[in-house]
Amino acid sequence: MLQIEKGGVCFPKGFTAAGVKAGIKTSGNLDLALLYSKESAQCFATFTKNQVQAAPVLYDRGILFNQNIINAVIVNSGNANACTGQQGFIDAASMAGQVEKELKLNKHSVLIGSTGVIGRVLPIDKITAAIPELVKSLSAENSELFAKAICTTDTILKTGCISVQTSLGEVRFGGSCKGSGMIHPNMATMLAYITTDLLLPKNFLVEFKTFVNDSFNAITVDGDMSTNDTCILLANGQSGVFLNDLPPTEQATVRHALFELMKHLALLIVRDGEGATKRIEIEVCGAHSKAEAMQIAKSIATSSLVKCAFFGEDPNWGRIVSSAGASGVTFVPAKISLYFEDVQIVKDGVPVEVAKEKLVEVVKKKEYKVSLDLCLGKSKASVFTCDLSYDYVKINAEYTT
Amino acid sequence: MLQIEKGGVCFPKGFTAAGVKAGIKTSGNLDLALLYSKESAQCFATFTKNQVQAAPVLYDRGILFNQNIINAVIVNSGNANACTGQQGFIDAASMAGQVEKELKLNKHSVLIGSTGVIGRVLPIDKITAAIPELVKSLSAENSELFAKAICTTDTILKTGCISVQTSLGEVRFGGSCKGSGMIHPNMATMLAYITTDLLLPKNFLVEFKTFVNDSFNAITVDGDMSTNDTCILLANGQSGVFLNDLPPTEQATVRHALFELMKHLALLIVRDGEGATKRIEIEVCGAHSKAEAMQIAKSIATSSLVKCAFFGEDPNWGRIVSSAGASGVTFVPAKISLYFEDVQIVKDGVPVEVAKEKLVEVVKKKEYKVSLDLCLGKSKASVFTCDLSYDYVKINAEYTT
Repeated sequence: MLQIEKGGVCFPKGFTAAGVKAGIKTSGNLDLALLYSKESAQCFATFTKNQVQAAPVLYDRGILFNQNIINAVIVNSGNANACTGQQGFIDAASMAGQVEKELKLNKHSVLIGSTGVIGRVLPIDKITAAIPELVKSLSAENSELFAKAICTTDTILKTGCISVQTSLGEVRFGGSCKGSGMIHPNMATMLAYITTDLLLPKNFLVEFKTFVNDSFNAITVDGDMSTNDTCILLANGQSGVFLNDLPPTEQATVRHALFELMKHLALLIVRDGEGATKRIEIEVCGAHSKAEAMQIAKSIATSSLVKCAFFGEDPNWGRIVSSAGASGVTFVPAKISLYFEDVQIVKDGVPVEVAKEKLVEVVKKKEYKVSLDLCLGKSKASVFTCDLSYDYVKINAEYTT
Repeated sequence: MLQIEKGGVCFPKGFTAAGVKAGIKTSGNLDLALLYSKESAQCFATFTKNQVQAAPVLYDRGILFNQNIINAVIVNSGNANACTGQQGFIDAASMAGQVEKELKLNKHSVLIGSTGVIGRVLPIDKITAAIPELVKSLSAENSELFAKAICTTDTILKTGCISVQTSLGEVRFGGSCKGSGMIHPNMATMLAYITTDLLLPKNFLVEFKTFVNDSFNAITVDGDMSTNDTCILLANGQSGVFLNDLPPTEQATVRHALFELMKHLALLIVRDGEGATKRIEIEVCGAHSKAEAMQIAKSIATSSLVKCAFFGEDPNWGRIVSSAGASGVTFVPAKISLYFEDVQIVKDGVPVEVAKEKLVEVVKKKEYKVSLDLCLGKSKASVFTCDLSYDYVKINAEYTT
């Protein structure tokens, strides 16, 4: 049985990390992080689809356009380096370049991540001044410092690791992410860094993207839509195990372990939803295609009215059905069924008699599942969302530019 | 100069109205309304595009499929008659039929509107019992009772009227609507009833739809997406004036008067936004097309992060630019300009130096305009939105099914 353990990006062989205070955040908290593998690592990455892309995203995409061999990622929090024009590119390149120099690495072997306020020029002098200390403090003990230094409004650390014993040796995965579940999550920057000592096939990106869709993109919903969203997997091969050399069942187990770690990290983001008190799985099944199921699930999961009802512990299924109807996907309203956990409340499009106390029991839970069955096809998809509370407004009204 | 005056649906000649307590609302407030023109009226109507359509919407669309001559509209609040299956249709038809009978009207000359909780069968007995009193109390003095009886979570009455003196005589418009500006307005039912004693050309529906797009659909954003949304214009011709007989400049004035009334009513919905403290116009200009400008404006206007920033009086332009980038419309980030009123804060995609006190002055206002100039084309569109406050969550968490 696969089990996510405590630990982070340094759990796999050959990775070290660091986190320091560069003074970017006015709070004085950790705000500069470094992840490093002395042995060059394969890099698989997905980035935001927002038209407005931050300098670090454009920089990374440029680097990865021609090659996928990377040694390090430097990440700052407190400033997104987005909408910063030409100066933003210069600063991004200078951050990466300085790390390459300090670590005596090849050119274009360092990626960058940034998260925080948009539209302010990076305090590059502070970063420049902090990089030597950052590099010096690299250690395999620093998973947690790394995790802390990439945070912004996060209230819990988001890390995890998992290992799989294969017939060719042990394979390890570690990871760390930042971000909070939000109403319109397409604006919330999500950064995720996954490490492994496995060696992966070159075409693994296709598979990685489906894992991202079913984990980080299934919770931050349009999570790929902030100016800075980034999800990076570094595989340095230090376990000596090549995925494709494993017997098929072990390959499946290893893939599953990676996906479970990614899902674990993604769910931590939902659990840390800004002001959230509940985590709800919205499952849409009986759809013609997975894409349609996902589209409906996202429409429900992002409805503020639905999310307010979750907070109010009100099984307001009318709002759920209405937001499904507004999703743009064609279905037959007279066919649908709706369940809160195993309590059916709609059948053939109309409400069924249900013992109120059974329903109340479900909506009072901290975590539960809402299932909408379209009764049309065999495809399904799940989105994980949180409720919308007073504190959401407080956090977001007070977060200042 | 056209001026919206106090008054409502009974202002134009030949219209009477009524509003009574049928006991549908547990609060005991007015919940059954009737609008009536003894002389048959032309009816122009737009309905929700949600796939899940309430029984009254399906009933009305059925009636209007073959003809557009109507005498009355009966509206109940407190129950949406949505997701009520076959019983919903029976109840809807029975409401309309009873009014036709009481008023000795032709079959299919009465339309219906419903708003309130979804998925509960209409308490049709209460409605049946109240209709005789409703019909008896019809009077040209009852614009306000009508306005009150169609409300749900509304905190202010939404009525208005306007008259135009033409060379062929006076023409009058009156109107009433219900609805509250919301984060995800596609779930909030909007009902609007406009009356006029003008005679309109049969093809006026096309024009009416553009008026709806620039008024009710420009504020409730995806306002056409609740299960019950309805906007109806009744024109009974009792002024003796036919629009097409007027000289072109007077035609323009009359059209403008109708649109101004509709916009006035729509803006009352924004002002009554659930828990809203501010009303913001989001203007997108310099677009390739009006549709693209509208799509970006709606993306910004529905972003919870943007709306929380308005509430927090924080000129968080980064969130605005980011949500424009997530709208799906192609533009050039390096070309955009952004203004809060006349204070420019972004030029060529990067922030410009601005006196903080000038900006603070704008964001502290109750009503102001944010303009995003794409600097690409000549088209523009505006959407009116409100801020997102603690009270929004309170109202929507406590509104019970």
